[in-house]
Amino acid sequence: MTCIVQKYGGSSVADLDKLKRIAERIAAAKRQGAEVAVVVSAMGKTTDRLVGMARELGPSPPRREMDMLLSTGERITMALLSMALQGMGLDAVSLTGSQAGIITNDRHNDAQVIEVRPFRVQDEMAAGRVVIVGGFQGVSYKRDITTLGRGGSDTTAVALAAALDADRCEIYSDVDGVYSADPALVDEARHLPELSYPVMQEMSAAGAKVLNAHAVQFAKEKQIAIYARASFAPGRETVVRRLPPEAITGVQAVVSEQQITRVRISGKRTLESFDRAVRLLEERQVQVKEVNLSHVAEDGGLSRAGFVVSSRNVYGWKHLEAELAELLGEGIAFDHDLAPLSLIGEGLNRNNQVLTATMNMLGEHGIPLAGVTTTSFRISLLVPRERIEEGVRVCHRNWIEGRPLLQ
Amino acid sequence: MTCIVQKYGGSSVADLDKLKRIAERIAAAKRQGAEVAVVVSAMGKTTDRLVGMARELGPSPPRREMDMLLSTGERITMALLSMALQGMGLDAVSLTGSQAGIITNDRHNDAQVIEVRPFRVQDEMAAGRVVIVGGFQGVSYKRDITTLGRGGSDTTAVALAAALDADRCEIYSDVDGVYSADPALVDEARHLPELSYPVMQEMSAAGAKVLNAHAVQFAKEKQIAIYARASFAPGRETVVRRLPPEAITGVQAVVSEQQITRVRISGKRTLESFDRAVRLLEERQVQVKEVNLSHVAEDGGLSRAGFVVSSRNVYGWKHLEAELAELLGEGIAFDHDLAPLSLIGEGLNRNNQVLTATMNMLGEHGIPLAGVTTTSFRISLLVPRERIEEGVRVCHRNWIEGRPLLQ
Repeated sequence: MTCIVQKYGGSSVADLDKLKRIAERIAAAKRQGAEVAVVVSAMGKTTDRLVGMARELGPSPPRREMDMLLSTGERITMALLSMALQGMGLDAVSLTGSQAGIITNDRHNDAQVIEVRPFRVQDEMAAGRVVIVGGFQGVSYKRDITTLGRGGSDTTAVALAAALDADRCEIYSDVDGVYSADPALVDEARHLPELSYPVMQEMSAAGAKVLNAHAVQFAKEKQIAIYARASFAPGRETVVRRLPPEAITGVQAVVSEQQITRVRISGKRTLESFDRAVRLLEERQVQVKEVNLSHVAEDGGLSRAGFVVSSRNVYGWKHLEAELAELLGEGIAFDHDLAPLSLIGEGLNRNNQVLTATMNMLGEHGIPLAGVTTTSFRISLLVPRERIEEGVRVCHRNWIEGRPLLQ
Repeated sequence: MTCIVQKYGGSSVADLDKLKRIAERIAAAKRQGAEVAVVVSAMGKTTDRLVGMARELGPSPPRREMDMLLSTGERITMALLSMALQGMGLDAVSLTGSQAGIITNDRHNDAQVIEVRPFRVQDEMAAGRVVIVGGFQGVSYKRDITTLGRGGSDTTAVALAAALDADRCEIYSDVDGVYSADPALVDEARHLPELSYPVMQEMSAAGAKVLNAHAVQFAKEKQIAIYARASFAPGRETVVRRLPPEAITGVQAVVSEQQITRVRISGKRTLESFDRAVRLLEERQVQVKEVNLSHVAEDGGLSRAGFVVSSRNVYGWKHLEAELAELLGEGIAFDHDLAPLSLIGEGLNRNNQVLTATMNMLGEHGIPLAGVTTTSFRISLLVPRERIEEGVRVCHRNWIEGRPLLQ
């Protein structure tokens, strides 16, 4: 029997009408004879609302309680979706992350799935039920509720698909897959029907929002094919799966991100300062995206260190800045006016031609560069935030438009 | 060390400001050296809002999913309260009903606490933490989330107090205890400083809202004294505890209830019809408050049967009426225009003087009687709903005002 794991994001279950339409889609899959497990996110802005309440109580809410709080969002969705399905005559049951056997480590707010014990899910499916699982949440070995970080419902879906040895993992959102650039920014953005795991991972890490980077990594490890589709506009999709390395080459997408902060540390004893700053960021679970150390002095100190951190979904970033400033004194500065623009594709750093050509393009448009990083799949350029949209369009026009569709 | 269980109702935690004030009260108790476990309800109208969503999806939502849905309300409160306490520098931890060891039977929406295994609560308290427990919820032997019915947070508090062998169980709400009548209805209502368990149980069963009837029954069995207090107006309280039977006599309170429906069944085969109706009500977990069978015919049938059910907190009462009508055909009728008025006190049915005097009083005011029931602690009279407030005032004036304060 075909086994499908479907995941529906927050905008797909934003209200009861959408929930009913989702229920109809699930019923259709079930009637075609498939075993269906469904992973759901919190409805619409529920998580933001809960985060807002927590932040009113203090700048850095205790993480364990944050997980207790936020995990309720998915539970509301899953109970209501189960009701909707049962109202249509289907047998259904909702399971919490804990009941579904999503076992994580103890790292609250950003827990890693360490094991999935899907026995109850399998039992309920064998009894003919649609199983609805609360995404984004698990249970730690201490029997506390954990959450997997923003976008964690994707990871729940992929982990469950792997544990169930499912035939497909379908991730539904309000877009019909992955594009060569954000269509809201670039009219000529191309729909990408197929992507390799590492390219998708780099895209997600660089700011593309369709799929969660951890989930893609998990899918790669478990060799689960992900189908990214639109909930209410059936048709196109993007499949993320194992592809031969030569299948796709060149720049496949141009991705940007807004919510980053560059932290610069200067002055004497910078190495120690750097270490203290990184420890604090680690403690506050802030993702450090890029590190830059330069000018090693003879006494082992550095005259300058910098790193780029994601300020997205960091609870109480302002408070954290104050803590960093207090920790390091005058030697710390924060740049909020920069944004990274990333070109994504296989083997982009194999020669420097893509990098130098891009730098020239941006230069011709008078867009200044504040930094560059490259990996096998990505070239990222830090530019002024106010020029980022223009930068994306320039790069997309030059690297993607007018070229034959890749593959 | 003194061990206190405190319970805060929905109106005491309706918003974040109130939550912070509650946190200060808890901190004060903790600083005085007590071990404190706190049971919380859902914030303000949260439960009503969740019930509303469920009912939009269908007239009788599946009970298991209803419990999954509703239990989120208390979890939001407890996580936020724990954050507030930690923000004040107190060590605190929130525990779900399941984590707190509240084990129930499998009767979803109206589960009975069958055992409390408070090991984790005790461990956390021993580590110096304030333990915050989600009220109203437990876990069944099937490892599913259950709820204890409306007002179930009181039961959680009493059950936990019993399991912890606590010195006190304090139930905080927006009123400072129990009155001889609803003060909103009767200006002269008297504050009652002390009540016996059975009198309090009858008051709750007859419509008084301060304490849950099941919780009082539980407290009686476990001999836990309950202190009913106002969250934000310290001062008076009502203590419910074991009292010598002779301590208080006469009518202590006049209580009324609005949301009842009288169901009448007539015609042939009434006994069978009655049985089918009661089974359906049982299945839908509707509380049957009173039963009345009359005129046993020679063939064993009845010409008439009636019962009074609570239509309060019944999800989809209108739908249930339609089901009953379909089940029984034309022989069923529903009266929505009646309400019970109850006199509460020890030994009220020892002689008939209280009953006959009350019937005369109501007759003098032209308030017609549709039925009478008596127990050791209660005389209930069914009167037209539009006359109920007047009836309460008449009875209160005659039986309570002008008499010396009882005890």
